[in-house]
Amino acid sequence: IKRIGVLTSGGDAPGMNAAIRSTVRIALYNGLAVSGIRRGYQGLIEADIDDMQIVDVGDIINRGGTKLLTARSEDFMTEVGQKRALDVLRMFEIDGLVVIGGDGSFKGAKRLWDMGFPTIGIPGTIDNDLAYTDLTLGFDTAVSTVVSAINNLRDTSSSHGRVSIVEVMGRHCGDIALFAGLAGGVEDILVPERKFDLDEVARKILQGRRRGKLHSIILIAEGVGKSYEIAERLEALIHQEVRVTVLGYLQRGGTPSVTDRILGAQFGQRAVELLLEDKFGRVVGIRDNKIMDMAIEEALNEPKRFDQDKYDLAEILSL
Amino acid sequence: IKRIGVLTSGGDAPGMNAAIRSTVRIALYNGLAVSGIRRGYQGLIEADIDDMQIVDVGDIINRGGTKLLTARSEDFMTEVGQKRALDVLRMFEIDGLVVIGGDGSFKGAKRLWDMGFPTIGIPGTIDNDLAYTDLTLGFDTAVSTVVSAINNLRDTSSSHGRVSIVEVMGRHCGDIALFAGLAGGVEDILVPERKFDLDEVARKILQGRRRGKLHSIILIAEGVGKSYEIAERLEALIHQEVRVTVLGYLQRGGTPSVTDRILGAQFGQRAVELLLEDKFGRVVGIRDNKIMDMAIEEALNEPKRFDQDKYDLAEILSL
Amino acid sequence: IKRIGVLTSGGDAPGMNAAIRSTVRIALYNGLAVSGIRRGYQGLIEADIDDMQIVDVGDIINRGGTKLLTARSEDFMTEVGQKRALDVLRMFEIDGLVVIGGDGSFKGAKRLWDMGFPTIGIPGTIDNDLAYTDLTLGFDTAVSTVVSAINNLRDTSSSHGRVSIVEVMGRHCGDIALFAGLAGGVEDILVPERKFDLDEVARKILQGRRRGKLHSIILIAEGVGKSYEIAERLEALIHQEVRVTVLGYLQRGGTPSVTDRILGAQFGQRAVELLLEDKFGRVVGIRDNKIMDMAIEEALNEPKRFDQDKYDLAEILSL
Amino acid sequence: IKRIGVLTSGGDAPGMNAAIRSTVRIALYNGLAVSGIRRGYQGLIEADIDDMQIVDVGDIINRGGTKLLTARSEDFMTEVGQKRALDVLRMFEIDGLVVIGGDGSFKGAKRLWDMGFPTIGIPGTIDNDLAYTDLTLGFDTAVSTVVSAINNLRDTSSSHGRVSIVEVMGRHCGDIALFAGLAGGVEDILVPERKFDLDEVARKILQGRRRGKLHSIILIAEGVGKSYEIAERLEALIHQEVRVTVLGYLQRGGTPSVTDRILGAQFGQRAVELLLEDKFGRVVGIRDNKIMDMAIEEALNEPKRFDQDKYDLAEILSL
Repeated sequence: IKRIGVLTSGGDAPGMNAAIRSTVRIALYNGLAVSGIRRGYQGLIEADIDDMQIVDVGDIINRGGTKLLTARSEDFMTEVGQKRALDVLRMFEIDGLVVIGGDGSFKGAKRLWDMGFPTIGIPGTIDNDLAYTDLTLGFDTAVSTVVSAINNLRDTSSSHGRVSIVEVMGRHCGDIALFAGLAGGVEDILVPERKFDLDEVARKILQGRRRGKLHSIILIAEGVGKSYEIAERLEALIHQEVRVTVLGYLQRGGTPSVTDRILGAQFGQRAVELLLEDKFGRVVGIRDNKIMDMAIEEALNEPKRFDQDKYDLAEILSL
Repeated sequence: IKRIGVLTSGGDAPGMNAAIRSTVRIALYNGLAVSGIRRGYQGLIEADIDDMQIVDVGDIINRGGTKLLTARSEDFMTEVGQKRALDVLRMFEIDGLVVIGGDGSFKGAKRLWDMGFPTIGIPGTIDNDLAYTDLTLGFDTAVSTVVSAINNLRDTSSSHGRVSIVEVMGRHCGDIALFAGLAGGVEDILVPERKFDLDEVARKILQGRRRGKLHSIILIAEGVGKSYEIAERLEALIHQEVRVTVLGYLQRGGTPSVTDRILGAQFGQRAVELLLEDKFGRVVGIRDNKIMDMAIEEALNEPKRFDQDKYDLAEILSL
Repeated sequence: IKRIGVLTSGGDAPGMNAAIRSTVRIALYNGLAVSGIRRGYQGLIEADIDDMQIVDVGDIINRGGTKLLTARSEDFMTEVGQKRALDVLRMFEIDGLVVIGGDGSFKGAKRLWDMGFPTIGIPGTIDNDLAYTDLTLGFDTAVSTVVSAINNLRDTSSSHGRVSIVEVMGRHCGDIALFAGLAGGVEDILVPERKFDLDEVARKILQGRRRGKLHSIILIAEGVGKSYEIAERLEALIHQEVRVTVLGYLQRGGTPSVTDRILGAQFGQRAVELLLEDKFGRVVGIRDNKIMDMAIEEALNEPKRFDQDKYDLAEILSL
Repeated sequence: IKRIGVLTSGGDAPGMNAAIRSTVRIALYNGLAVSGIRRGYQGLIEADIDDMQIVDVGDIINRGGTKLLTARSEDFMTEVGQKRALDVLRMFEIDGLVVIGGDGSFKGAKRLWDMGFPTIGIPGTIDNDLAYTDLTLGFDTAVSTVVSAINNLRDTSSSHGRVSIVEVMGRHCGDIALFAGLAGGVEDILVPERKFDLDEVARKILQGRRRGKLHSIILIAEGVGKSYEIAERLEALIHQEVRVTVLGYLQRGGTPSVTDRILGAQFGQRAVELLLEDKFGRVVGIRDNKIMDMAIEEALNEPKRFDQDKYDLAEILSL
């Protein structure tokens, strides 16, 4: 390996810049050349590629988003597109590729590796929906953003005895709602992994009110259902206005947290090390507080486990 | 005047605590006793009242919401309720009342003054919809909250070339959208005071994209229409996903800004001074960077002027 | 006027980027060409100049510091340097110059205008030490940074019954300490404009402690004296540890506040308008909440007035 | 065990409130009564104790500091004091004690357990200087506070080509400097665990400047030496002003991070579980991302290991 490429793909996540910075600097430190590929696999196909030096990743560690931009690529879904990608990689003398992204991006990396091209994946997605790693890049920042929104709502909800619903990201994986709910001390957490009973939600609010609780904040992962409809049904049950906040892409942005910056640094380091050790077709991650790596295929097959302990703890603490 | 009462009413706003703190401490400093009335006019009617000392307003200056809580009161809309309020005020030997709130709260204060009870109003509402004052308490903080949300969206929107809609508060008054849009450098600002042409919004996005703009953020005051519908119509025009963020009551919360804390301190001071000078039935405010006061009636009659200059400036700067 | 130059000079201040962005875009909108001069007067002398287009000021509104960089220039103090500056301006066909900076930068602008070159000054300095304008760019953000530091100290000081000293900027002008102290609700504010009596400071702390106050935070503008020495003397008087926090250049950085961004937009607009109207040798500012302008010379001669009212108000509220 | 006591001792740390909340609510949920002991061991000796119910720990999860206050106690150092503490515990029918604090607090807990009283320790200290646990409560928040300060400095340092020194906490343990330096991307990190060579620091700054680096930020743990002296010596070497920022107790305050809030919840849960299982004289912690517990004595004897890997990684990335 003499020159590596690096790209970010899929939805962007805070900490991607830290991982880019680390990948580039560790590679250069080890005598490799580095090509930055813009706009993910689409940019790869379109040869939107530039050489990267140490200064090119200066002052990005504290920025959300990704300096290399990202995109979803339909062209890369086709065999023609994938071959084109390989051609471009060879044309630019790139002999190893670091892909920063989520599930879909890893599948693309696996495809390239199946075709013989050395790739390494770094988990970058705010959803934390990759089972093989305890944390994905961006998750901690996204949870912090939600908790900070809960902080704001707490002030005003207390003053008014209000009920608020906050819709957060998570179509299949409720981790953002779960962690933010536990950290934010909300009254109820609705996640796609568990059924919910709106009567019980309403009961809890009414009981809390009798015990003097001044506010009720309910977190809903988007996969659970339509927040506005749930709010309406809840209003009917508790006879009180329920206001909805939809955080949307707000959760993708923001200055990366300390955790995401350090993870990004460590992931980038391990990714380059693997390429230097001729270990390809692997993804890096963190397990039991240790940076680890594993075959992409294996990683993609691990079933995501819901953290029932944290869910139960949040339930007890919200009393 | 020997004892004053203070209450917060209507929607809460950051800075209300600073105004309560100032009112209480300035009053005590001037030898007055102070009664804190909880839950606005409703708490007044229900005699939810406690004596306040210097320590009771310690460590609240940095908290959103209102320590005295707030509520909307239907009882106070009736003549019976208003008389009951007067009875309670006299029963508790309160001979002057400071009301912190918006339009509706001021009407209540005016009613009490019409019935002969000395009242002073402090403008506390995030909407900035009181025409007689350049700023209402809470407005600056709410705008900051929106701008900080725009900051987050900017990172991720740039990475992805995304179009985002952010719905902010403002049913009749677009000031939050206007100020946050100008400060946040968004691409378009839709306010209830001005008609909008969605074709033009779409044109601007498409032109910006051609010029290399990586993101488009559109602020919509809630009075303009349903964000989700506008998003759908816009998607049809620009053939690109448009994600909606609804900030909701998030905008009411948060640590008050410097401006709102200083305003709160100054408003509280002037309110107590007016009571000490036997000037009643007045509201305090800030105009031309000077604390001022005026008859409630007059204040309520001033027509709100839309700040066309800022609107035009935002338009030019968003090119 | 066909082409204007813009530079930032002296200490940087949050909001300078907003002013650059506005100056550039308003100028381009009005058909003027714009040259960005890097590193202030020194860069001018060294012809460190680039053409600026709309995209060159994209995504800087939310960044602290200045995209055009800044420096102090000894060369420009000399007549030779000043003539060289004029030569460069003419060589680059710049026929109007916008200077963003403080006192010293304005003197430079005045010198150029005295030599016949059309200049306009925009007040950019966190110290708020320009008397002719109610606010300078960066002041509001700096005060917010200090208040946020006070917030942090408040938590821990309360838990421990601690006394803390916070040293803030301000060699001659205590405005940062004054505004942050009033907004932060600190126990004492020491500014260069007023003598202080350490016995009185100590008395107040001891009395507060007896009344149940859990913490004491004292703000000191750097012009008052050495914080560590004052802390030692205070420890001797109150027999309790006094910990010092020195915020230093922390106060220069940070995302600009809403106020500073809007001011930046408005100052840039007025600066370009003045050049278009052939009004030269002037500075822009804000007075009584209105954007204004005035001859540089006059502006530099206005004596700075200390805001005794806010000082007294802070004193009463800190009881 | 029918009634437990909970106290915070030593320096306060963000997340202590989350741990108090969790301890109280988990205990109540399991049918135990809870006594809150104010001001640490000193308050225990003085019987400054109140019964705690669910509402008493409402709305504290987001607050820095500790609701139970803290203090250092000389009385508790003596045998008389310790016996008095035992008497008070028995008098109040407390039969198990949760101590939240650092090294010194744990020694106190061990003393009580040596005397036969059931105690459990929760690690709460921003310094992360307890070797047996990967994280102590408050560390993540403190690091975030430092990183946010670095963010601010970065803006202004870039604009000016400045060199800044930031002094952070850590007399014997450089973890705050190490983690914040890695996450903040600073140019140099000086910790008490490693000798430093100021010539090398200076060389790096000068080389960086030649390579176009616009700023240099150097983090110094307070145990390394006097920042102002180091700054002066550095100025002599690089012929450029070096400004010092001393964060002081700022690092103790602030809203707890997500990590610290979740840790607090989990630590409190495990602490109560241990008491319920009649396992005493133990401390809880987190290792390899799992909540664990171990005998106090053993925990206190573990030697703190410096994280050389992170130190080396930071070194490479700062190039």
